[in-house]
Amino acid sequence: MNKQEAIKNYNEWINRNNMYKYAINSISYDDETGAPKKAYKERSEVMNFFGMELFKRSVCPEFQKIISDLDRHYKSLSKEYKRIVDLEKEDLKKNIKVPENVMFDYQKATTDAYYYWELAKNKSDYSIYKPYLKKVVETQIELGKYIKEDNEDIYDTFLKNYEEGISQKELDIFFDTLKARIVPLLQKIVESDVKIDDSWAFKKIDHDSQMNMGIFMAKAIGYDFSKGMVRETEHPFTNEISDHDVRITTHIYENNFTSNLFSMAHEGGHGVYGQNINQKLNGTILKDGASMAFHESQSRFFENIVGRSESFSKYVFPQLVKLANKKLDKVTFEQYYQAINKVTPSLIRTEADELTYCLHVMVRYELEKLMMHNEVDYDTLNELWNKKYKEYLGVDVPSDKEGILQDVHWTSGCGYFFSYALGNAYSAQIYHAMKKDLDVDALLEKGDIKPIIKWLKAKMYKYGRLLQPKELIVAVTGEPLNVNYYCEYLEEKYSKIYHL
Amino acid sequence: MNKQEAIKNYNEWINRNNMYKYAINSISYDDETGAPKKAYKERSEVMNFFGMELFKRSVCPEFQKIISDLDRHYKSLSKEYKRIVDLEKEDLKKNIKVPENVMFDYQKATTDAYYYWELAKNKSDYSIYKPYLKKVVETQIELGKYIKEDNEDIYDTFLKNYEEGISQKELDIFFDTLKARIVPLLQKIVESDVKIDDSWAFKKIDHDSQMNMGIFMAKAIGYDFSKGMVRETEHPFTNEISDHDVRITTHIYENNFTSNLFSMAHEGGHGVYGQNINQKLNGTILKDGASMAFHESQSRFFENIVGRSESFSKYVFPQLVKLANKKLDKVTFEQYYQAINKVTPSLIRTEADELTYCLHVMVRYELEKLMMHNEVDYDTLNELWNKKYKEYLGVDVPSDKEGILQDVHWTSGCGYFFSYALGNAYSAQIYHAMKKDLDVDALLEKGDIKPIIKWLKAKMYKYGRLLQPKELIVAVTGEPLNVNYYCEYLEEKYSKIYHL
Repeated sequence: MNKQEAIKNYNEWINRNNMYKYAINSISYDDETGAPKKAYKERSEVMNFFGMELFKRSVCPEFQKIISDLDRHYKSLSKEYKRIVDLEKEDLKKNIKVPENVMFDYQKATTDAYYYWELAKNKSDYSIYKPYLKKVVETQIELGKYIKEDNEDIYDTFLKNYEEGISQKELDIFFDTLKARIVPLLQKIVESDVKIDDSWAFKKIDHDSQMNMGIFMAKAIGYDFSKGMVRETEHPFTNEISDHDVRITTHIYENNFTSNLFSMAHEGGHGVYGQNINQKLNGTILKDGASMAFHESQSRFFENIVGRSESFSKYVFPQLVKLANKKLDKVTFEQYYQAINKVTPSLIRTEADELTYCLHVMVRYELEKLMMHNEVDYDTLNELWNKKYKEYLGVDVPSDKEGILQDVHWTSGCGYFFSYALGNAYSAQIYHAMKKDLDVDALLEKGDIKPIIKWLKAKMYKYGRLLQPKELIVAVTGEPLNVNYYCEYLEEKYSKIYHL
Repeated sequence: MNKQEAIKNYNEWINRNNMYKYAINSISYDDETGAPKKAYKERSEVMNFFGMELFKRSVCPEFQKIISDLDRHYKSLSKEYKRIVDLEKEDLKKNIKVPENVMFDYQKATTDAYYYWELAKNKSDYSIYKPYLKKVVETQIELGKYIKEDNEDIYDTFLKNYEEGISQKELDIFFDTLKARIVPLLQKIVESDVKIDDSWAFKKIDHDSQMNMGIFMAKAIGYDFSKGMVRETEHPFTNEISDHDVRITTHIYENNFTSNLFSMAHEGGHGVYGQNINQKLNGTILKDGASMAFHESQSRFFENIVGRSESFSKYVFPQLVKLANKKLDKVTFEQYYQAINKVTPSLIRTEADELTYCLHVMVRYELEKLMMHNEVDYDTLNELWNKKYKEYLGVDVPSDKEGILQDVHWTSGCGYFFSYALGNAYSAQIYHAMKKDLDVDALLEKGDIKPIIKWLKAKMYKYGRLLQPKELIVAVTGEPLNVNYYCEYLEEKYSKIYHL
């Protein structure tokens, strides 16, 4: 078979996959944004069906032949197709080892877990969720047995799913460094004379005004509503449905307006990445974020480095006042800027300040390690959660809802959380590089986000998934991951705010 | 192959079809309820893909074998499977004659037409829509050539698509009878001394209050929001996504609150039918309305016979007053009841009063006849529309938006409209039969809709598509279609309102 035919066959195969993926993404967004609960089983049956079809198609002999036909022309392929073949071969190697029933059990466990997690969270009762969480982890471990490399630790297997080339060994060092820099800084802040009163920020602002404020924020950071939309969910998320359709969700708390505001900046940041990846890669598996941590680097960049910066706040705040239905009329800029950067060890990760955020991630990382290695008693896992919160953050967890039930992620198994912390580190390093080319503060103060997105497109978004994460960070910033940029960013910012 | 295997094979085949259908329905609902316009092409590509897959699956040799395997056991099949085999064989006979490209052209023409219809309607410019309407009809006629029976008129071919066993011959008589009874009645009303002043009904009621009023109305007629939802669209519709998920849409005009109210009753009526078809038929092709006219019989029953009745209005009106944000405080019951039953020859079918409604349908039926027989000049079709409106309804059409562009239906081709008129006739005949068993007025006055839905379930909904329309009307009412029930219903109702 000649190269053109091999490429054509592969593209046709992927096109059908894309149709199935579209169906899953679209039905899943619908599922989480108001679809009737009583039809949950029907919906999950459909999502499972297409998921299983995709899995079957990823391992069947026909697909194996398509890839080996393509591989035969490897040397003369473009760099894009070389990368595609590498990624497909890597996936094939893993997937063909997995028996269909093992994959089915895992997929079913995740949809069940999602359903019971939501129920359990509403009732703040971990015991409802417990057996389904256990089942997800068990089926994930079972799955891992088939896909892991010889002598590979099973947690590494799943970490690599989210970030090519990462390992516990690296992450342990990464988290240790973070801990060594963040904990003393936090201590100084707690002991500082600066006490920020943000009680004004917990007064009621009506739902519709908040929605307008959130939409303003998302637009201000560059999210394009003509290629997306926002709906409300319990837990905000981003869903890349198709090339021109990257959707976000938010959650509005009437007595905590900054929650929605920075959810919109966070998910909007994911959205900006998804909406601006090189259109030349449309339809290919390279039309995607480079890794989950790179995805989080963009959400955290727009939420924190942009969204909570002094310069951008100067642009944003007067607009927010106008949209807040008179509720912010008496608030000063200084009050706003301090409130959105107040450091308080707290219970909820998504609501955490920028500084303590990584400590929340650390708790989850350590619990995942235990779960993945079968070293956990599910009957008391919620208590272990609470214990670690006391240890790292000094807070007492009053309920499962504010504890182990707060996050959706484990309904799909373990391995994701580190991406947030690594994403933070990437975002600061990217920011450091960006400042060499652009006067970022001057742009943000004018609300001129376009040059920033243009820079990100030219330096990073153009690659999609073409480069491995470790290559990409070098391509964007000129050097490998260096967690010091993040630590320095935090130290500089908070020293100023807390007069350290 | 034994019977069990044949049934199992068939059910597995249908199960995959159901997955594809679910995807189309869900994506289509999303498409029409706020999905980003810029992703329209991607969405329609996906919908077309699954549509074509379903078509291919409906004609392929594998499916033909499945049906012939089942057919071999015909005599020993249950009545449900007998009907299934009959319907599948009928479809197969038609579909296998259609070349794939002919079906593809038709499907593509319909998605294009939908897009340009919406655009044209927004700009009130028929010329934008014209080539796409022409293309839909051309491709539909082309399609018809392959599926029509020998010597069958092509319009009959498509009418039968919506109502088994119907023909132009029958419909001509049906419409002639209607015209002969409605036109003199309308004349008397126009000449009557009773003049209804409904100007108060066109004062502004805010969006949120109207949404609450509409939801109240839908619930009152029995629509179950735990198995459905409502969103807003330009043109209200119902979408049966799955067994426990039958969704509706509405359109809110701030200066015309009854529009939304009766859209909710109309679509809610479709919803009640969809939500209450025999659950034993789930997953089969019999889990469906008996025909489009029977579907319309339910929407029109709940919109008009229930929704605009004096008795139900007595229950509904005080609640609407409470929900209307003080805007109906000065309105009397008599004013409300008269306004919702005011007869005024007008421009928009969906806004038409119960009496003149069928005249709107007649215009479309006559234009469809011309289109289907290639006897129309598309350059002046909008003018022909306007001419017929002047002739039948005595009104001047001031713009295409209020004329030929008002309805979405022709974006999928011709053949549907008669269903509304036939549905009206069915609804009155069913109502007549229902009154023999239930004191309908007494129930409606209490807002006690459950016994009515119970009756409909027991008499009609339990069949799904098991019976042919001509069998079903006999099963439900004890006699064949008799348009006199509808004429008598109208005469009695309007004689009272207009003191004739």
